[in-house]
Amino acid sequence: MSSLLVDNIGELITNGAGEGPLGIRRNAAVLIEEGRVAWVGPAAYAPAADRRVDAGGAAVLPGFVDSHAHLVFAGDRAAEFAARMAGEPYTGGGIRTTVGATRAASDDELRATVRRLRGEALRQGTTTMEIKSGYGLTVADEARSLRIAAETSAETTFLGAHVVPAEYADRPDDYVGLVCGPMLAAAAPHAKWIDVFCERGAFDVDHARAILACGQAAGLGVRLHANQLGSGPGVLLGVELDAASVDHCTHLSDADVAALAGTAHTDGSGTRTVATLLPGAEFSTRSPYPDARRLLDAGVTVALATDCNPGSSYTSSMPFCVALAVREMRMTPAEAVRAATLGGARALRRDDIGVLTPGARADLVVLEAPSYLHLAYRPGVPLIRQVLLNGVLQ
Amino acid sequence: MSSLLVDNIGELITNGAGEGPLGIRRNAAVLIEEGRVAWVGPAAYAPAADRRVDAGGAAVLPGFVDSHAHLVFAGDRAAEFAARMAGEPYTGGGIRTTVGATRAASDDELRATVRRLRGEALRQGTTTMEIKSGYGLTVADEARSLRIAAETSAETTFLGAHVVPAEYADRPDDYVGLVCGPMLAAAAPHAKWIDVFCERGAFDVDHARAILACGQAAGLGVRLHANQLGSGPGVLLGVELDAASVDHCTHLSDADVAALAGTAHTDGSGTRTVATLLPGAEFSTRSPYPDARRLLDAGVTVALATDCNPGSSYTSSMPFCVALAVREMRMTPAEAVRAATLGGARALRRDDIGVLTPGARADLVVLEAPSYLHLAYRPGVPLIRQVLLNGVLQ
Ligand SMILES: [Zn+2]
Ligand SMILES: [Zn+2]
Repeated sequence: MSSLLVDNIGELITNGAGEGPLGIRRNAAVLIEEGRVAWVGPAAYAPAADRRVDAGGAAVLPGFVDSHAHLVFAGDRAAEFAARMAGEPYTGGGIRTTVGATRAASDDELRATVRRLRGEALRQGTTTMEIKSGYGLTVADEARSLRIAAETSAETTFLGAHVVPAEYADRPDDYVGLVCGPMLAAAAPHAKWIDVFCERGAFDVDHARAILACGQAAGLGVRLHANQLGSGPGVLLGVELDAASVDHCTHLSDADVAALAGTAHTDGSGTRTVATLLPGAEFSTRSPYPDARRLLDAGVTVALATDCNPGSSYTSSMPFCVALAVREMRMTPAEAVRAATLGGARALRRDDIGVLTPGARADLVVLEAPSYLHLAYRPGVPLIRQVLLNGVLQ
Repeated sequence: MSSLLVDNIGELITNGAGEGPLGIRRNAAVLIEEGRVAWVGPAAYAPAADRRVDAGGAAVLPGFVDSHAHLVFAGDRAAEFAARMAGEPYTGGGIRTTVGATRAASDDELRATVRRLRGEALRQGTTTMEIKSGYGLTVADEARSLRIAAETSAETTFLGAHVVPAEYADRPDDYVGLVCGPMLAAAAPHAKWIDVFCERGAFDVDHARAILACGQAAGLGVRLHANQLGSGPGVLLGVELDAASVDHCTHLSDADVAALAGTAHTDGSGTRTVATLLPGAEFSTRSPYPDARRLLDAGVTVALATDCNPGSSYTSSMPFCVALAVREMRMTPAEAVRAATLGGARALRRDDIGVLTPGARADLVVLEAPSYLHLAYRPGVPLIRQVLLNGVLQ
């Protein structure tokens, strides 16, 4: 059994026991055995190990957990982006452009895009990345999207209900039937989660409930796109169905916030349904940001994710999302970093990631900086020096 | 004489002859000889060369020209940043914190910081980076700051008038005398430019004029920090003194804009005095952004720069500034990329950089993307695949 010691850590973010909300330990070391954290403690008392990574006094944190990404697609929409920046509004209508390109692409083309973006995110410190389907929208194309996603991630999400495809535009009930029937049957073997884009212009609350309930019956966990473009019933539906996460949350009523707060665990560890905020989408659609403070102050567990997709948020950078969360949503740097690590883990109902405590997966990031503060203090700068995934230096 | 062909360029930004404001050429190649661009044309007609870099269909652009950076300092101000994000206003007062740390640092410590940040910027595509003094504020410390800066950049700027140091707080006239006398004499051999922070709380217009005039008399070019924190006489002073650039320009009057527009070259190539916008500073101080459209629409040449410094903008990323310029200042992606390359060159009164036309310095960036649009479309993502500096692959 080979062991690895990450030593000489100036500032270790554990998200467990330690100083402040990030559970910080100073002058620490982490012992890794069999891909897991085996010991965390003062560097001066570190046990012997077969190999050693010298963090050189830098900050070390759990790898980022990006719980919301759409990586299985073809083509890009740079021209649509440029037009939007020149004043055209974002309506989500461009999704169909990507659907056409995705259907026309070969498996290998889709696979290459997933791997390219997953690699790009990994180099920026993302050690867990959820991947959704949703640009196939036929039985075969959703199934292959998830099959390809599952080659790269254990966190795969069936999003057949991303948008009603053009060929079903005048008979959405039939499309919902397809999603709940043969499409779900073909997708479920490759998926852990089911998701619906519950929004005006996409799926209404009755369709969303029907689809999510079918997914649950097939053994999938529930998450959903809710309240992005306007207020609506999505968040309440998520709470009703015990969703792991409701994502976007840009337009919330008091009832929405109260419902999320009402899912609090009795041990004070946060809410069962997480509010996942995706500030990259607001950045890239020039939209108002969600009110993160309102959620945090109500005790709702918040996650940060990229929403990486070619239409509304083509960033794979969790550090960028942290910087935006601080600048634009008034999260403290500590709240933002916690949301980008432990928050994402909670949004995926995982307790083995997002923390650096004994037993956790050894997914670690060594920063090119002495403190996690630099992730917000130095926006846009590539600050990820080293990444360990499952205890293996990447 | 060894030659190098950068071949298979899907989209070449020349900032010269070609399509649109960026002078784009498709399916192009660039021949480099002796560190200069020797030929630009269709890949199909590329001449033979000793070596070849295959751009793989990617976009290639001139290296970024970052015309405003403060790299000679010690310490960081991450805690001040976090306090500011929690609501404390930015007043520039923290500069004195960095002055204390800088004076206490050894030459080698300062040199290591300059090299680290210059290297970080280079990896993000910055091939020219202006470096200012301004955290020494004694004759010896300003001279050594510039000596160290000059080891790394030909574009060095004497900013002894960054702030009145604490020991001169009650006799600013004496400090101005020091700056114009022995400090300038010691600094000038290592500097190309002189700069003043002309702002309430720093130097008033009479002091600024006196200092800049002394610098001009000593052979230095003029640039200045103007109209960042409020409206004021800085921009008009810059125009009066034929400054190469007035930097920040966050609070402008109609007269300021008209004065800048009045410096237009008769050949339509832009204005002699450039407005350099530093959106990283507004991002990191949570301040309103400058009105770039008003300047562009008036015909003023705009540059983008990082303002890299430990207090108000600790980013070294020109791609991040491009993304902010598009999102927050409503520059088109083309305007932003032009401002970050040719605009910076104009702000340094250089005609050998910021363009990829025969005779220019072979400073090139190969993107990990098919189009320059991705610099705004994919915010926060490290998109710089390769950098050539003086024709040498880094
Ligand atoms: Zn999404
Ligand atoms: Zn500055």
